[in-house]
Amino acid sequence: MATYKMTLAYDGSRYSGWQKQGNTENTIQAKVEGVLSRLLEEPVEVAGSGRTDEGVHALAQVASFRTERVLDGDRLMAECNRFLPQDIRILSTVLTFPRFHARLSSSGKWYEYRIDNGPVARIFERKYLTRVEEPLDIAAMREAAAFLLGEHDFASFCDNKHMKKSTVRYLYEIVLEEREGILTISLHGDGFLYHMARILCGTLIEVGLGARSPYGMQRILEARDRSAAGRLAPAQGLFLRKVEYPV
Amino acid sequence: MATYKMTLAYDGSRYSGWQKQGNTENTIQAKVEGVLSRLLEEPVEVAGSGRTDEGVHALAQVASFRTERVLDGDRLMAECNRFLPQDIRILSTVLTFPRFHARLSSSGKWYEYRIDNGPVARIFERKYLTRVEEPLDIAAMREAAAFLLGEHDFASFCDNKHMKKSTVRYLYEIVLEEREGILTISLHGDGFLYHMARILCGTLIEVGLGARSPYGMQRILEARDRSAAGRLAPAQGLFLRKVEYPV
Repeated sequence: MATYKMTLAYDGSRYSGWQKQGNTENTIQAKVEGVLSRLLEEPVEVAGSGRTDEGVHALAQVASFRTERVLDGDRLMAECNRFLPQDIRILSTVLTFPRFHARLSSSGKWYEYRIDNGPVARIFERKYLTRVEEPLDIAAMREAAAFLLGEHDFASFCDNKHMKKSTVRYLYEIVLEEREGILTISLHGDGFLYHMARILCGTLIEVGLGARSPYGMQRILEARDRSAAGRLAPAQGLFLRKVEYPV
Repeated sequence: MATYKMTLAYDGSRYSGWQKQGNTENTIQAKVEGVLSRLLEEPVEVAGSGRTDEGVHALAQVASFRTERVLDGDRLMAECNRFLPQDIRILSTVLTFPRFHARLSSSGKWYEYRIDNGPVARIFERKYLTRVEEPLDIAAMREAAAFLLGEHDFASFCDNKHMKKSTVRYLYEIVLEEREGILTISLHGDGFLYHMARILCGTLIEVGLGARSPYGMQRILEARDRSAAGRLAPAQGLFLRKVEYPV
């Protein structure tokens, strides 16, 4: 039995997210499992590091799977890429230690959210950016972001009302960088709740537009109530950038 | 009567090219004329610096038009962008001298052709790149390009069989740059014949793949016969980057 660690990128635009759900075959997981099962001639189950929602992209999602057949990782990657749709690409496939699991072994994640805030909307990247017409006050957004760093109960930033497990997470870094009219919000944490990255960004955008004060963040966290936070930012601007593992 | 110079970008993917032709409204020219005529409340004719073919993009196409109504250029641009489809954006609109004409006044053009030649195909830019799987020999392509510089009869690189006017053009520069697996071929000339940029790039790609010798370029030029040159490279990798005017 061999365990593989696979890194993959995808354009989430036309998929119902990463995770298989009921009958829908229109998920990235289902596409990858279909191709792997055909190539390895056995049913293969792929575990992702986490779900990405409908329309969310990945620059480097990580998935793990086990198989009876031990193949060269590079060859397996090349074969997969031949049969996968063009909007899903395997970036690497390597043999790893038997107990590796993409989700359970993960120690942290980077997401990035891309906002087009230039004077004229970008054309060629328009499907991978959220357009905000009014100029954003990035200094105010940075001030607001500082309140969110560290360990907090992020219940206000979670869209799962029936969350039974803890909603406490640790946010290590929030980095805002503006370049040629594109504002990128990078989020680094030990884990993200359902919609957490997009609600955080939606709330920061409202601060940038002057609709909220940066000093309101503390109160939003304390409320532990979804209605205290801002809107869910659109999926098309969100990218899962990196999944971290302890070496 | 006011004359305007307009600079615009477009994603050519879903259009039948720049130029209006017969009944088709599915051209960039028709979209821009439609919006301008509505805003200025008079029929407006827009002259482009040249046609771009079906599926070809523009980073900065230039167009000129005249109108009885003198409006602030920035306001006109903002109004146009409100009503144009998202894949066409006006980048600037400025009043200019009365005899300015986007095509007749032009003194040169830059095109760029983008090739994805990395080990794994790019996902997010895939509609704006031509994928070439085999590694290209860029040194050989540069050698071939050198033969094309200067004044030549480019009849072999023209898809208009019934060209009545001269097929002599001047190529000032051909620059090949590779970065992170993307090879960009930049072409700078005084003018380009029908399909010339794409046939030049298609021929250079064949050199890069080892299917042609760089030293065959001289013979292709001398043949003055389309069948001597290489294939027409796909439209999706071609961008009109800049149109030049004598100050």
